Amino acid sequence: MAIKVAINGYGNIGKRVADAVAKQDDMELVGVAKTRPNFEAFVANKKGYPIYASGEDKIAAFDAAGLEVAGTTMDMLGEADVVVDATPEGMGAKNLEGIYKKLGIKAIFEGGEKHDAIGASFNAYCNYQDTIGKDYVRVVSCNTTGLCRSLSAVDSVAGIKKARVVLVRRGGDPVQIKKGPINAIIPNPPTVPSHHGPDVNTVMPKWNVATIAVLVPTTLMHQHNIMIEVENDVSREDVLKEFYSRMRLMLVRAGDGLGSTAEIIELSRDLGRPRYDLWEIAIWEESVNVVDNEVFYMQGVHQEADIILDNIDCIRAITGVEKDAKASIRKTDKAMGVMGSFRPPQCLEDKPEELREIHSKAWGIE
Amino acid sequence: MAIKVAINGYGNIGKRVADAVAKQDDMELVGVAKTRPNFEAFVANKKGYPIYASGEDKIAAFDAAGLEVAGTTMDMLGEADVVVDATPEGMGAKNLEGIYKKLGIKAIFEGGEKHDAIGASFNAYCNYQDTIGKDYVRVVSCNTTGLCRSLSAVDSVAGIKKARVVLVRRGGDPVQIKKGPINAIIPNPPTVPSHHGPDVNTVMPKWNVATIAVLVPTTLMHQHNIMIEVENDVSREDVLKEFYSRMRLMLVRAGDGLGSTAEIIELSRDLGRPRYDLWEIAIWEESVNVVDNEVFYMQGVHQEADIILDNIDCIRAITGVEKDAKASIRKTDKAMGVMGSFRPPQCLEDKPEELREIHSKAWGIE
Repeated sequence: MAIKVAINGYGNIGKRVADAVAKQDDMELVGVAKTRPNFEAFVANKKGYPIYASGEDKIAAFDAAGLEVAGTTMDMLGEADVVVDATPEGMGAKNLEGIYKKLGIKAIFEGGEKHDAIGASFNAYCNYQDTIGKDYVRVVSCNTTGLCRSLSAVDSVAGIKKARVVLVRRGGDPVQIKKGPINAIIPNPPTVPSHHGPDVNTVMPKWNVATIAVLVPTTLMHQHNIMIEVENDVSREDVLKEFYSRMRLMLVRAGDGLGSTAEIIELSRDLGRPRYDLWEIAIWEESVNVVDNEVFYMQGVHQEADIILDNIDCIRAITGVEKDAKASIRKTDKAMGVMGSFRPPQCLEDKPEELREIHSKAWGIE
Repeated sequence: MAIKVAINGYGNIGKRVADAVAKQDDMELVGVAKTRPNFEAFVANKKGYPIYASGEDKIAAFDAAGLEVAGTTMDMLGEADVVVDATPEGMGAKNLEGIYKKLGIKAIFEGGEKHDAIGASFNAYCNYQDTIGKDYVRVVSCNTTGLCRSLSAVDSVAGIKKARVVLVRRGGDPVQIKKGPINAIIPNPPTVPSHHGPDVNTVMPKWNVATIAVLVPTTLMHQHNIMIEVENDVSREDVLKEFYSRMRLMLVRAGDGLGSTAEIIELSRDLGRPRYDLWEIAIWEESVNVVDNEVFYMQGVHQEADIILDNIDCIRAITGVEKDAKASIRKTDKAMGVMGSFRPPQCLEDKPEELREIHSKAWGIE
């Protein structure tokens, strides 16, 4: 039986999780709850998603816009096995106490909520097993997800002794026309270390991770600069091989014309990705280096997209329908069209056999 | 028999025309010619498009990247009925004299070429009939196309006496990481009137059109501010109705959350458009106004996308396979998925019956 999933909040995250749920053969989208009939509501209507008004008092506005609603959020929750709460920052915690606990419905929250308010945090590569059967779980933010993904790869081959990261964050999402900066670099937070390190620790408590973050005037992606002291002797090739082996990391090369976040997004547009969503973390291959047991690399995080995969896995974990992390990840990646790489396998003739095999698989050639 | 189309130059325009040609049931994509094996070449390979190197001396680079080439540009041209030249600005005119005339192949050029160098210019709404059977035709630029489309609508209901337009142009395309400005407003050209008015006249010689243009720090769309003195009495409703009746114009409302170019592009992403291409010219419905025989409105032009439709129509016009402009336009729009509007018809209950009918058709409901 398909898991019945409700989406509470239909903004940047909610609309993407809705589309992703609709693509899974073991899930059913019960509907989406919205506060107002803006253009996103018209598109939801066009896609055939049942629309629920966020309250009785909101129904009139949808009626006036000519959009039929299936009921209110409470009606929607009554139909669902699990709710993904993609409401604005801080509202999820209120919904947890005020609604979900009373209804006894399992709930997934996003990175805008505080870990302590929810009680558990999630990243599919790191702690899927620990999440099985929990009732309330938070999928960590886009930046934390990006760090968890590539750090877990480095940890698995070399053991993380100490990770230091400088995050260059996008000022706002493309649609956020009133966010900024538009002409400044903002230490944000101005305190050091930033909250991103501790946020990684909500998923992987043992890692020594310290982070510093700034905001810059761009909307496309975050960019991370990563320096990791490792426990074990490891070569650049070992690290690259591990990166290549993970479908949710995509190696890109400046030499292929992908030397910036803008060009990486252009690739994603060309690949025909919905909303140009790059679910994979892009790692610049040229930047990967190992010097005296220190691993260096730079990566790009499409802030709107990466967490969508983990939301889908989290739905399987908390409902317990899939006990094996790798099986869920594989299922999600296949349904979404995660590629791991945009380069055809014949372009890797100078690489070790094993790496080429991994890569061929990622490209869909067994 | 399908028209065999070759694409010379596979950048922002070429890759889109290639995809559009591949979607037409009366055309066949012979292949695409490229200068270098960057990420766009890998995507072309993934899509199964035959890749031709732009010269014998370029083949080695493709070989080194592991990409098979089908030959050189000259080989490609030998297979084609018509070539779409999407090479960098000014190169098209050289190719016309140096290659296409010698081969006797029909050729379509883009807005970067000068009208005089090609001899004829094209917009599907304006001068399809005049183009039938010509050998060399230039599809006018994105801005000129946007102006031709909405001005032709106003002309048809009211007669253009005098049009004045201020164009606020995007500084560069999303992928052009070295273009600008990034923090300035540039009168561009600094001379008044700008070349855009005369460019409209290459298609519609009789219109009195003067334009002024500036560049601003954004990548998403151009924005036009339009003031037209008209010959005949006309109401706001008349103008809106004509706009609604044309599939390549899309009325949007700030009231629906579409009050900026960024939000319009977000709509296009949500609609699942390839590369978020908004082929339609977006006209802000609230801005449409008529005061004392002067028509005012504001529009947004997705600079990467609008001309793609006209390129397809131009292929039919110069090869003469379709003599009727409306038939070609309808065929192109249907194949591409041009919608004319994102609002479902039931949301227009306060509109005149005729307008709703037009709209229902645009929405795919007969």
